Amino acid sequence: MRSRTPSVNPKTAPPTEGQVTTGPIYRSEKIYDEIDFEGTTLRVPARRVNLTNGDHFDVYDTSGIYTHTDPELDLKRGLAKTRDSWPHPDAVPASDEHPELKVRTQLAWARAGIITPEMAFIAHREGFDPETVREEVAAGRAVICANHNHPEIEPMIIGKKFAVKVNANMGNSAVTSSIAEEVEKMVWATRWGADTIMDLSTGRDIHETREWILRNSPVPVGTVPIYEALEKVKGDPTKLTWEIYRDTVVEQCEQGVDYMTVHAGVLLRYVPLAANRVTGIVSRGGSIMAAWCLNRHEESFLYTHFVELCDILTKYDVTFSLGDGLRPGSIADANDEAQLAELRTLGELTRVAKERGCQVMIEGPGHVPMHKVAINVEWEEQWCEEAPFYTLGPLATDIAPGYDHITSAIGAAIIGQAGTAMLCYVTPKEHLGLPNRDDVKIGVITYKIAAHAADLGKGHPRAQERDDALSTARFEFRWHDQFALALDPDTALDFHDETLPAEPAKTAHFCSMCGPKFCSMRISQDVREYAKQHGLDSVEAIEAGMQEKSREFAESGGRVYLPISAT
Amino acid sequence: MRSRTPSVNPKTAPPTEGQVTTGPIYRSEKIYDEIDFEGTTLRVPARRVNLTNGDHFDVYDTSGIYTHTDPELDLKRGLAKTRDSWPHPDAVPASDEHPELKVRTQLAWARAGIITPEMAFIAHREGFDPETVREEVAAGRAVICANHNHPEIEPMIIGKKFAVKVNANMGNSAVTSSIAEEVEKMVWATRWGADTIMDLSTGRDIHETREWILRNSPVPVGTVPIYEALEKVKGDPTKLTWEIYRDTVVEQCEQGVDYMTVHAGVLLRYVPLAANRVTGIVSRGGSIMAAWCLNRHEESFLYTHFVELCDILTKYDVTFSLGDGLRPGSIADANDEAQLAELRTLGELTRVAKERGCQVMIEGPGHVPMHKVAINVEWEEQWCEEAPFYTLGPLATDIAPGYDHITSAIGAAIIGQAGTAMLCYVTPKEHLGLPNRDDVKIGVITYKIAAHAADLGKGHPRAQERDDALSTARFEFRWHDQFALALDPDTALDFHDETLPAEPAKTAHFCSMCGPKFCSMRISQDVREYAKQHGLDSVEAIEAGMQEKSREFAESGGRVYLPISAT
Repeated sequence: MRSRTPSVNPKTAPPTEGQVTTGPIYRSEKIYDEIDFEGTTLRVPARRVNLTNGDHFDVYDTSGIYTHTDPELDLKRGLAKTRDSWPHPDAVPASDEHPELKVRTQLAWARAGIITPEMAFIAHREGFDPETVREEVAAGRAVICANHNHPEIEPMIIGKKFAVKVNANMGNSAVTSSIAEEVEKMVWATRWGADTIMDLSTGRDIHETREWILRNSPVPVGTVPIYEALEKVKGDPTKLTWEIYRDTVVEQCEQGVDYMTVHAGVLLRYVPLAANRVTGIVSRGGSIMAAWCLNRHEESFLYTHFVELCDILTKYDVTFSLGDGLRPGSIADANDEAQLAELRTLGELTRVAKERGCQVMIEGPGHVPMHKVAINVEWEEQWCEEAPFYTLGPLATDIAPGYDHITSAIGAAIIGQAGTAMLCYVTPKEHLGLPNRDDVKIGVITYKIAAHAADLGKGHPRAQERDDALSTARFEFRWHDQFALALDPDTALDFHDETLPAEPAKTAHFCSMCGPKFCSMRISQDVREYAKQHGLDSVEAIEAGMQEKSREFAESGGRVYLPISAT
Repeated sequence: MRSRTPSVNPKTAPPTEGQVTTGPIYRSEKIYDEIDFEGTTLRVPARRVNLTNGDHFDVYDTSGIYTHTDPELDLKRGLAKTRDSWPHPDAVPASDEHPELKVRTQLAWARAGIITPEMAFIAHREGFDPETVREEVAAGRAVICANHNHPEIEPMIIGKKFAVKVNANMGNSAVTSSIAEEVEKMVWATRWGADTIMDLSTGRDIHETREWILRNSPVPVGTVPIYEALEKVKGDPTKLTWEIYRDTVVEQCEQGVDYMTVHAGVLLRYVPLAANRVTGIVSRGGSIMAAWCLNRHEESFLYTHFVELCDILTKYDVTFSLGDGLRPGSIADANDEAQLAELRTLGELTRVAKERGCQVMIEGPGHVPMHKVAINVEWEEQWCEEAPFYTLGPLATDIAPGYDHITSAIGAAIIGQAGTAMLCYVTPKEHLGLPNRDDVKIGVITYKIAAHAADLGKGHPRAQERDDALSTARFEFRWHDQFALALDPDTALDFHDETLPAEPAKTAHFCSMCGPKFCSMRISQDVREYAKQHGLDSVEAIEAGMQEKSREFAESGGRVYLPISAT
C-alpha cells in the first residue's frame, strides 16, 4: 500500500529556493559600485568578467542577487526592499498645465529639476551624467518604470538616448504552466539580460502568480490589466465595466506593477478599419476592447475614463504603456489605416497623461516588412512627443513559424537602430505555443543581440567596447575569454567542446573549423609579427622594395607561421 | 570469437542511398512545369504545397529529386545529366573588346543577344520573361553558375533583380567529418532551400569528396581552389606556385565546379594595411596569399596570372567569385582601408574577366555594424560594375558566439535589401566548430528568412504571396496549412504539438498561447462577422449611430464570440 501525502496542486504550489536558477555566470562575479546620493549609498550592480590576461570587463547586468555565489534567497519574503530607504523628494506640481495637481512621479520630479536616487543610479549604470537622465525623463523621451510599491527593483531607464532594452513576456494560461515555473522564468530571463518582464497570465491564480513574481523580481514588471479584468467577468468582454477594470488596476498598482499596457486607442470608429484586414485584430487586448465597443456600440471605457486612469497610475508612479490594439498581425496589414488611426489617438492620450505627471511609453508593431519599419518610428515620434517606443519585433516576414525569434530580431534591430527604446522579445514558439524555459532564454539572447546591434548602429558610447574586447580575445586565441564575454557563455563553450573538448584546445592557436594548418587568424598573427620584424609593416616600407630582406628570410628557411604546437 | 569484416575507413567510405534524406516535404509534392525551348522540353521544378481548403501554393524549390516520393537514387552514377541534351549555342565573341576570342559562356551569349536554355529555365522558375534574364546577364548584373561539365544542375540565377539566393558551406577538415556526411549535408541543405553549396574541404580526400558532391548536387557547387592547392604543398603557403594552383583549378573545372573563389585582390602592398587591425586577416585564402606575398616579397600570382585564369574559367563557363581576402573580421575593422583597397582591385579584375567573356561575382563582408552595411553595396556597385554581390552575413555584432546565424542574419537581411544578390549562410557553430547536420539546417532556414525578408523589402514580385498565403491560413485557423507553408514545417508542427498534440487542436479555433477564452484571432473573426451582419462594417455606418441594432443584439443575448467547440 502506498503512503499518502497531503495533496498539493503543482500548478499553484509556491516556488521553493531550489526551483530557481542561481550562481554566477561563466567566469564572472557580481560587483556593486557604491555611489553616494545625498548621504545614502546606492549600490549599482554590474557583472565583472574576469579575463585570463588579468584584465576584467564589466557588463550591464539585470540578474539581481540570483547570480551571486551562494545568494541568500528567501522567495517567500522576497528581495530586499532597497528603494524604501532611498531619500525620495516630496510631491511636486504634475506639470505647468496642472500646477495644482501635486504628484510624486519621476516625470514631475524631473520637470521640477530634481534628480532622484533612481536617476543617479541609472546614470551610473548606463554611463551618463545624472543631469542627462533628468533631462530625458523631463522631456518624456525616457521613462523610469518604478512603482513606489515595488521597492525591490534595480532602477533602469527606457529611452532612445540609452541602451536599447529588452522585455521578456511570461505568464501562465488556462492551458499550461505553474506559479513556480513562472517565477523561475523571471529569474532565468533576467539572468540572460531581460531588462523588464511582463506577466501576461490569463489563467487562474493571476494575483498569486504576480505577487510571487513582483516580490522576487530585480527588474520592473509590466502587466495588461484587461486580462485579469476579463477573468473576473468569466471571459465575456461584453460584461466588462469601467468599475471592474479600475478596481483591477488599483489592485495591481497596490501590488507594485511598474507599467501597464492600456489599449485606450482602440476607438469604436476604428474597429471597422480592421474588418477587411488579412489578419484582423491580433492584439488580445485590442480584440477584447473591439468586441466591447462594437457590442455595446459605445466608446471604449479606457478612452472615456482615461483621465481617471492617469490619476490612479500617477499616484503610484506606474508608467503607461499605451497598447497598440490595432497593430498589424501580418505583412499584408502593416502600416494600414487602422494602425495609424490608433497611433494618432495614442499621441492625444500621451499629452493628457503627461500633463497629469504620468509617464508614458507607446507600443508598436508587430509584423512589418523591412522597408516599412523606420517610418513607424518617425510617425511615433511626431505624433506621440517622442515618448519611448516599445515594439514587438516587428517580424520582417510571416513565412517562418518556429523561427519567429529570428524573423522578428531582424525587424527589432532595424527599429531599434531607428530609435525604438525597448524591444519586446519573441520566442521560437510565437504563433505555435507557450514558451518553455529554453525558449525564454533563446528569446532573450536573440533580443539582446538585436538590441546590441541597434546600440552599435546608434553609436551608444559603451556598445562597441564589448565587441572589441571579444574580438581581441578571439584574435589572441583566448578561448575562455571569448566564451565569458559572449551573451551566452554556456552555449559558446558547449559548441566549442562538441568538436574539441580537451582543455588544451582552449588555449590552442586554431579551432575545428579550419584545423591546425589553415587557421587564418594564426597566419594573420604570424604575418603581423613577420612584417614587424622585417620592417614590412607599412605600405611605404613595402613599396620601397625591401626585397633583400625577403630573400634573406627565405634563405634562412624562415616560415611565415610556425608548426602547430600542442599548447 | 568475433567474425572479421574487411576494414573500411568510415571517413572515406562512399555514401549509400540510405545515408541521404529523401521524401517529400510536409504536405507537398514535387512538380515540374514543362516548357518548350526550341523543340526541347525543359522541366522546371517547384514544390506544390497542397492546402486543406483545396487550393495549392507553389514555391521555388532547390531540392532536386531527393524530395520525390520514392526517388530512384543511384549516388554512384549521380543525377541525370539533363543539361547535356539541351540545345546550347555555338561559341561567340567574348566581348566587343575581344571579338577575336570566341567563347561559350552565358555572358557572351547574352551579349550576343542569345537566350540560352538556362535563361529560359530560370525565367520560368523566377517569374520573369527570358529577355529580362538575358539583359541582366549581358550587363553582368547577374550570373548563371553552370559549368559545362556539371550537367546535373537545375539552373538558377544570382543577381539583384531576382530573388536573393542563399549559399551553404560544407566540407570536411583535417579534424572531423566523412564523405558520406558531406554528401548528406548537401542533400539536406538543398532540401531546406540552399541555392548553391560550397565545398570547402581542407582535409584529405578533397577530390573524392567533391566528386561525390558534384555528381549528386541539383544546385551549383562552388569551391576555393587555393585550399586544395595548399594541401598539395603540405600546408606551406610559401611553397605555392602559379603552376600548382593552375593545375588545381583545371582539375576542378574538369570535374564540374560551377564557381570558384579567387582571392586575386590581396596585393602585396595591401598586406600592411591589415597589420594593425583588431583581427588581422580572417579569410583563409586571404591569409594564405598574404603570407605568400610577404614571404616572397612578390606580387600575388593570382593577380599576375589573372588573364590566364580567366581563359581557363571561360572555357568551362566557370564563374569567378572574386574573394574578399581582406574582409573585416570584427566590428572594429569594418569598412577599413584594407577592405576598400582590395574591393577597388576586384573592380579592376571584374573588367578584365568580363572582357574575356567570363562571369563574375564579388564577395563581401563579414563583420559590419548596421549603420555601415548599406554603403558596402554602393561601393561594390560603383567600383565593380554592379557585378552580383555575394556576402558572408555580415554579422551585426561580435558578442554572441553560438548565435552568429542570428547576428549575421540581421546584417544579411539589410545588405540583401540594399542589393546583395547572394548570402553565404552562417551557422550557430561559426567561430566555434564545424556545423553538423542540424546546424546546416538552422543556417539555411535562418538565411532563407533573411533572403525572403530582403525580397519583401526590395518588392520582389512573388515574395509577398507566400506571406499572405500563410497569414490567411493563420487567421482561418488552418493549422496544417500554416505548417506546410512555413520554411520549416517539421519544426512548426513539433512546436505546436509540444503543448497541444491532439489532432483536434489542429482545427481548433485557438492555440495554447492564449487558451480558448482569449484568442484574439477568433474574437477578431467574430467581430468581423458580427459587424457585417449588423451593418457596422464601415466607419460611416458606425458614425451614423446605429445604436438600436446594438441594443437589439444585446437584448437577444447575443455574444460577440461563441463558446469554443471541440472541432
